[in-house]
Amino acid sequence: MPDDARLLSHPFDDDKLREECGIFGVIGVVDAAQFVALGLHALQHRGQEAGGIVTYAPEVGFASARRFGYVRDSFTKASVIETLPGSLGIGHVRYSTAGSKGQTQIRDVQPLFAEFAMGGCAIAHNGNITNAVALKRELIERGSIFQSSSDTECIIHLMARSIQSNIPERIKDALRRVEGAFSIVAMTRSKLIGVRDPLGVRPLMLGRVGDGFALASETCAFDIIGAEFLREVEPGEMVIITADGVESFFPFERQRPRFCVFEHVYFSRPDSVIGGKSVYETRRRIGVELAREAPVEADLVCPVPDSGTPAAIGYSQESGIPYAMGIIRNQYVGRTFIEPAEHIRNMGVRLKLNVNRALIRGKRIVLVDDSVVRGTTSRKIKEMILDAGAREVHFRIASPPTQWPCFYGVDTPEKDKLLASTMSEEQMRAHLGVDSLRFVSLDGLYRAAGEENGRDDARPQYCDACFSGDYPVSPADMIERGFQLKRSA
Amino acid sequence: MPDDARLLSHPFDDDKLREECGIFGVIGVVDAAQFVALGLHALQHRGQEAGGIVTYAPEVGFASARRFGYVRDSFTKASVIETLPGSLGIGHVRYSTAGSKGQTQIRDVQPLFAEFAMGGCAIAHNGNITNAVALKRELIERGSIFQSSSDTECIIHLMARSIQSNIPERIKDALRRVEGAFSIVAMTRSKLIGVRDPLGVRPLMLGRVGDGFALASETCAFDIIGAEFLREVEPGEMVIITADGVESFFPFERQRPRFCVFEHVYFSRPDSVIGGKSVYETRRRIGVELAREAPVEADLVCPVPDSGTPAAIGYSQESGIPYAMGIIRNQYVGRTFIEPAEHIRNMGVRLKLNVNRALIRGKRIVLVDDSVVRGTTSRKIKEMILDAGAREVHFRIASPPTQWPCFYGVDTPEKDKLLASTMSEEQMRAHLGVDSLRFVSLDGLYRAAGEENGRDDARPQYCDACFSGDYPVSPADMIERGFQLKRSA
Amino acid sequence: MPDDARLLSHPFDDDKLREECGIFGVIGVVDAAQFVALGLHALQHRGQEAGGIVTYAPEVGFASARRFGYVRDSFTKASVIETLPGSLGIGHVRYSTAGSKGQTQIRDVQPLFAEFAMGGCAIAHNGNITNAVALKRELIERGSIFQSSSDTECIIHLMARSIQSNIPERIKDALRRVEGAFSIVAMTRSKLIGVRDPLGVRPLMLGRVGDGFALASETCAFDIIGAEFLREVEPGEMVIITADGVESFFPFERQRPRFCVFEHVYFSRPDSVIGGKSVYETRRRIGVELAREAPVEADLVCPVPDSGTPAAIGYSQESGIPYAMGIIRNQYVGRTFIEPAEHIRNMGVRLKLNVNRALIRGKRIVLVDDSVVRGTTSRKIKEMILDAGAREVHFRIASPPTQWPCFYGVDTPEKDKLLASTMSEEQMRAHLGVDSLRFVSLDGLYRAAGEENGRDDARPQYCDACFSGDYPVSPADMIERGFQLKRSA
Amino acid sequence: MPDDARLLSHPFDDDKLREECGIFGVIGVVDAAQFVALGLHALQHRGQEAGGIVTYAPEVGFASARRFGYVRDSFTKASVIETLPGSLGIGHVRYSTAGSKGQTQIRDVQPLFAEFAMGGCAIAHNGNITNAVALKRELIERGSIFQSSSDTECIIHLMARSIQSNIPERIKDALRRVEGAFSIVAMTRSKLIGVRDPLGVRPLMLGRVGDGFALASETCAFDIIGAEFLREVEPGEMVIITADGVESFFPFERQRPRFCVFEHVYFSRPDSVIGGKSVYETRRRIGVELAREAPVEADLVCPVPDSGTPAAIGYSQESGIPYAMGIIRNQYVGRTFIEPAEHIRNMGVRLKLNVNRALIRGKRIVLVDDSVVRGTTSRKIKEMILDAGAREVHFRIASPPTQWPCFYGVDTPEKDKLLASTMSEEQMRAHLGVDSLRFVSLDGLYRAAGEENGRDDARPQYCDACFSGDYPVSPADMIERGFQLKRSA
Repeated sequence: MPDDARLLSHPFDDDKLREECGIFGVIGVVDAAQFVALGLHALQHRGQEAGGIVTYAPEVGFASARRFGYVRDSFTKASVIETLPGSLGIGHVRYSTAGSKGQTQIRDVQPLFAEFAMGGCAIAHNGNITNAVALKRELIERGSIFQSSSDTECIIHLMARSIQSNIPERIKDALRRVEGAFSIVAMTRSKLIGVRDPLGVRPLMLGRVGDGFALASETCAFDIIGAEFLREVEPGEMVIITADGVESFFPFERQRPRFCVFEHVYFSRPDSVIGGKSVYETRRRIGVELAREAPVEADLVCPVPDSGTPAAIGYSQESGIPYAMGIIRNQYVGRTFIEPAEHIRNMGVRLKLNVNRALIRGKRIVLVDDSVVRGTTSRKIKEMILDAGAREVHFRIASPPTQWPCFYGVDTPEKDKLLASTMSEEQMRAHLGVDSLRFVSLDGLYRAAGEENGRDDARPQYCDACFSGDYPVSPADMIERGFQLKRSA
Repeated sequence: MPDDARLLSHPFDDDKLREECGIFGVIGVVDAAQFVALGLHALQHRGQEAGGIVTYAPEVGFASARRFGYVRDSFTKASVIETLPGSLGIGHVRYSTAGSKGQTQIRDVQPLFAEFAMGGCAIAHNGNITNAVALKRELIERGSIFQSSSDTECIIHLMARSIQSNIPERIKDALRRVEGAFSIVAMTRSKLIGVRDPLGVRPLMLGRVGDGFALASETCAFDIIGAEFLREVEPGEMVIITADGVESFFPFERQRPRFCVFEHVYFSRPDSVIGGKSVYETRRRIGVELAREAPVEADLVCPVPDSGTPAAIGYSQESGIPYAMGIIRNQYVGRTFIEPAEHIRNMGVRLKLNVNRALIRGKRIVLVDDSVVRGTTSRKIKEMILDAGAREVHFRIASPPTQWPCFYGVDTPEKDKLLASTMSEEQMRAHLGVDSLRFVSLDGLYRAAGEENGRDDARPQYCDACFSGDYPVSPADMIERGFQLKRSA
Repeated sequence: MPDDARLLSHPFDDDKLREECGIFGVIGVVDAAQFVALGLHALQHRGQEAGGIVTYAPEVGFASARRFGYVRDSFTKASVIETLPGSLGIGHVRYSTAGSKGQTQIRDVQPLFAEFAMGGCAIAHNGNITNAVALKRELIERGSIFQSSSDTECIIHLMARSIQSNIPERIKDALRRVEGAFSIVAMTRSKLIGVRDPLGVRPLMLGRVGDGFALASETCAFDIIGAEFLREVEPGEMVIITADGVESFFPFERQRPRFCVFEHVYFSRPDSVIGGKSVYETRRRIGVELAREAPVEADLVCPVPDSGTPAAIGYSQESGIPYAMGIIRNQYVGRTFIEPAEHIRNMGVRLKLNVNRALIRGKRIVLVDDSVVRGTTSRKIKEMILDAGAREVHFRIASPPTQWPCFYGVDTPEKDKLLASTMSEEQMRAHLGVDSLRFVSLDGLYRAAGEENGRDDARPQYCDACFSGDYPVSPADMIERGFQLKRSA
Repeated sequence: MPDDARLLSHPFDDDKLREECGIFGVIGVVDAAQFVALGLHALQHRGQEAGGIVTYAPEVGFASARRFGYVRDSFTKASVIETLPGSLGIGHVRYSTAGSKGQTQIRDVQPLFAEFAMGGCAIAHNGNITNAVALKRELIERGSIFQSSSDTECIIHLMARSIQSNIPERIKDALRRVEGAFSIVAMTRSKLIGVRDPLGVRPLMLGRVGDGFALASETCAFDIIGAEFLREVEPGEMVIITADGVESFFPFERQRPRFCVFEHVYFSRPDSVIGGKSVYETRRRIGVELAREAPVEADLVCPVPDSGTPAAIGYSQESGIPYAMGIIRNQYVGRTFIEPAEHIRNMGVRLKLNVNRALIRGKRIVLVDDSVVRGTTSRKIKEMILDAGAREVHFRIASPPTQWPCFYGVDTPEKDKLLASTMSEEQMRAHLGVDSLRFVSLDGLYRAAGEENGRDDARPQYCDACFSGDYPVSPADMIERGFQLKRSA
């Protein structure tokens, strides 16, 4: 890769919010590493940059492997998996973590591992610690040496300094010092541990596989290994799982849950189940809400594949306008072809998407996408559609305008890079150059997610800070760096 | 890879017909290799095993690179592309060719190249030569030395022995000895050449890019490079393209065209245009025909993604039964995870597909797939659907029963491995264990492809040998090996 | 490599003592990393398993690269070196370190790096800390988290807990807690630092390169970069080098120096200079001493190449018996060919050495080797010589019998694997099956090394623990694990 | 490698004549490929660029593997060797062949293989065909397609057109059309075949291994596999070896042998035996001749390692001047370090050699090297020696002045690049800047090689064209390209 001076960046990397991590753990199965590899493969959409697995077997101790790239490439070789024996293991896929913007080092790839006086502990974290800068400063002053740029390492060092005498207690001790969003899967020599922060911002699911148990960010990871989904780990809950079963603890002060609403919109896989509901179905219903809130006369409803597909189906069903695949996705996605000297317009997008020209020509198109972040991709797609001869283009967006960055484990551009934070809806429409542009309302989104009366502004049911600027945990580090909270009305 | 003893084979490799090649050529552009790489990327669905590019630049002569694996991995590095200078180039992606069943050698990867007394010539071939065995025997007796197991090499040796004085004439001379199906892209130091066999079994398209021209198996390869689609190369036509333009020749005896109907069903990308019609639209109309021919009461119409999607949309629209994504495809497809000791049922399929359990439970499902080859995958998908709690499963297949092998450039199992060649429709239904199973009729397929009156049995408009056993070119080599043609009624 | 089940181990790996590390640093040059790479290449004989380089440039901070394998393979690519900018850098090559017997992890590869409150520090260590186990136990109890299995990491954690306010003072503070042998090269953002333990067991040299300075384990590393050798860093000395020059400190309690005598025998390169004397010349003089102490009638004096060569030349010159290359070394040394089913006798040795049969036949051979460790290789060489028709074989060994393990940074077999610790000289002769076997005396060795009166048993001039069992620093960790010191007479 | 813009070329590549190939074959052993790999490893000095192995096993047919790089890297993996089953195999190592100056392609790597009507044949060739250009032109006109740039392919195509009915006869037929130097190892499904050209320019040895037989360029390849050296294949002889034994044929017109004298000087390994004499011993005797012909007063005789070592020993023994290792070779030879911006004088040479400074200072040095080709390296070595403080430098060269290129399988610079072809001995001395320079005489060389009366100018015993310009076979292709033969006196 370093020999490719003219690398094209991935066309869509810049223009989506990105979940930063997926986590998985299993106990009580033969060859746990193979289950972890499969589980991580199912969670690959939550982090494509790197992955890691740690296992424990009494005869060899803890073993770990960390790799850049996809699980399908890194953790399918017998030569790798055979170095990871044991019936207990955890794993992690990541996009990037707070800290190492820029080049990720392999030492930043989780699970992190530490040897304490009472034994080893591995930990995998989905979320973001909002007071990590302050914690790290304090720990370095006391003599801790940080090996990674991961905020998760704070938890390890807090555990090392805890005066508690066993690892589960040290985890509790450490997490009580931590602010922000965290779903955690950890393991000792004999225990699989799951913890979710008091607000339950990030998901964590509990399943049964054979005589053992599994923890995963999403239920789709249970399906791939033939596990049975039991229940969600509750906000603020810690589960400690051994051969004997599952014990439950609630070590934190109780708070009203605020699950991330964007998991419904985009992050989670459509075949996962959250809160007892199919994510696919929630997205389809966002399309229904959109069709009610923002109808338009048109010939075809087309999704921006693949994330816009369920909402487009819903829009079509509610509006009666036929659904069609107006844009086709290249399944052999290529990120980094060299741009020829004879410039190809929108080449980046063409590597991934192509307009179904013969279908689109002369038609009025409703184009359904999941979100608008920077708006750069939306513009290019619109251009391709118009080049193909569409008569009208109407954008319908299956989420409210994204106006605020996320500090709870999602990679978002800075506030002034978010199109919706600098423009009104009409300004955005003009900027994108489309005939109409409409977003689903916050209430519509909540209704689709099962809140029949929409958002309860006094006690919001979800974390929707990216839309509302209402941050349920104060982003202390970012405020120290100058981030301005929304002025309360 | 050799260290993975327990490799799972790709779950779907065994149960689809596979196009064996995609070809592309361009002349009159700066950095032709980059255009070829992009064109091949767009044609990757026609061959995933290997690819090659040859270019010509006056200062360095012919240059070539051949690689196993995807174009996105092999031909995106500057270090590779920079070894391929020039404004004229051709390329090829392949699945496997006649001959080297088993391990492909890099020397089998096209384009093939030969230096003749009057200069060099590179050639890329999509199709299959049905008299290759006899030709090869004859050529070896005369002193030719074959370097590859590719049937295409016969063309090269025939050219070497031609008494014609220039390369285009030698190509004509050689192809007149060749039987079977061939779409060919070739190049000399100054000419880009395209040829299509007299029946026109395989596609070949002509486009304009800037001041130059391009040839490609499908129009989607023009879209990615911003080229304009001009027309199809006609059956039996040879085009010779230079800086000055396109010359057209018809060197073969005229025959009635028999384009491959399966290109409409499965091979071609849905965003390509064949015969002036969107492939997507033809597939959607197959779904419409299916809904008319084989209606059923049900709650949801679900495609087997992605190839069944357009027909499922058509079925839904014609029947009024809601369309839904009942099966979700993992976009990070993993072929070769290690199967854990604790066996996971249908693990191979789970790596690629997952049932949308919360949606499917208790429902009557119409499941639309493009074809049934061996039936192995269909059974597994049915099991997953029933495991998820579906009440009824009705299979609807967007092609007639596949009963005969293809000898014109498609990889098919032997006849007795084709489910439909050994079972009646009812036997297949029972074998697959579904509530109903119906295939579109041959007439229905022809109607969807634009033949309003269906198939003209006296003078069939397409090659449909895989469904009908009606082989437009006698498969001489196979008959020599004992293949039995259908007894004429 | 994991696919090679029948790997032959390197024929000689088992039968030599191995220096565990080479270190190098440079300040005040353009592109320091290139100098470090060259210096490490010259020191490759001190460690072949892995290597690392750290540099500092104000605009990018500290940069590091660590790789398994030879410097010539890892640190010659522009793509690697360009990631290591700056005018200040240090490097390390290693064989293996205390701790990670078995599989080395990349995290064990030095230089180690840590970020302290007052800035970063990288450190490369040649030697061994004899109280590392106790130190590590203490540090973990206080909350330190160890990331590597390297004993060197103790130094880092001791520094992190130091109450001193700058890095050089913290290094002094940490090293005062450390027992054993250490030559260290370290760097901060602006300083290159060298330290040698009070006994000066391992070497460390100071040189000038252009307007800058360099530190290296041996002078041969100065020759390759065209640097001028200035002087040795003295036992117990710390040098702090900046753009302004070299400052010298003596932070430890003074002790009588005990430089490792085996550096003269085998570890150092023959073109290096120690104590003002050519290592080659010292070795030649060992051969002279051997010829005086252990003369024999013979036809040819042959070295076991390449380490026995200088002593063989000396033996020939003193004895008047002609010197000859009776054994030829294959310069393309192959470690790991697969042993054929038809067993080849002594195949491992044959990969590296071959007897000059036509020369040897019928002759009485004096065979000169540097040392006998396990004796396994000596036996095989003797067999090859006799197979080739030699009439007599007389082994002459250029070091005293190796009876004790080294705990100061050299990889030695356990005591009971050392041939000389379990057998008398006559038993060894019989075991090896040679006509005579003689070792140089300890006094002879000291004389060759410049001590005219031989060893001063009251105040030995060198560390010769491997021959004498006289350990100048008590090996505390090993004693805790049960190692028995020699009972004092 | 392509990312290394500032690659240093190998310091010595430019300044040595290079044997272009080593060949090996074996029949009648289990796992022939492993024997071939070992044999090629022993012959690695004859070609380092690439290697190939072909084997035959009845159950799988012919198998081949061809790789760039060293045998120790390419043919030691079980994953490669296991693809090469059978009890019969041949192999080849190459430096470069006539034709592909510049970038070698893997298709140029031998053994070449062809399938004829009567079965397959693999062939490995050491030497050079002097009428290859004319042959190739003729063959292409008749319809042959060349796949490689190797002159050896002519033999294959001549065989393909032969009217003989079996492969051994076709080999004879083909070789009768070929001019130049060739030692050949070939194989069919059941036969191992060796052929040597009528002059016997290149070596070929016959050995016995277990119940089978082996052929090799040099006897050192027999030693590594424990084979017994039987005899040389004679000039003009063809041996056909089967399970039943060795048959001998003499298919060519008889000529007086002219073995390459440079094999004695440099190409062959010193532990090989040619004409019943140790190569090492011949080289030592060249040193003795040199000492007689060109004595000088000096303090030390030092070889340029490693090729000058035997002659230096001989010079020392004859002259009584002590032998010493004044130049030390780095055994981890590095070819391609990046040259720092701060230029290092003679960096290329420093990567490989270092002067033993403490030994050399103030001394008068006789420096013995095997040959002077371009003289570039000799100058650099002289500079290093003088930098180190030597008082005088006297070059003694163990071959006569190299004035003419070789056309029989050795890579030589063009005539005007050979120092000795443009300068007198005194001019060369001044150019190199040494105190004296002397070459051994042609007669001295012949005497050392066993011809007591020196060269018989009427009927020279060896091919010494590189020294004398007396070419035993007219270099037809080169003359066509304008090469001027020596005007006969």
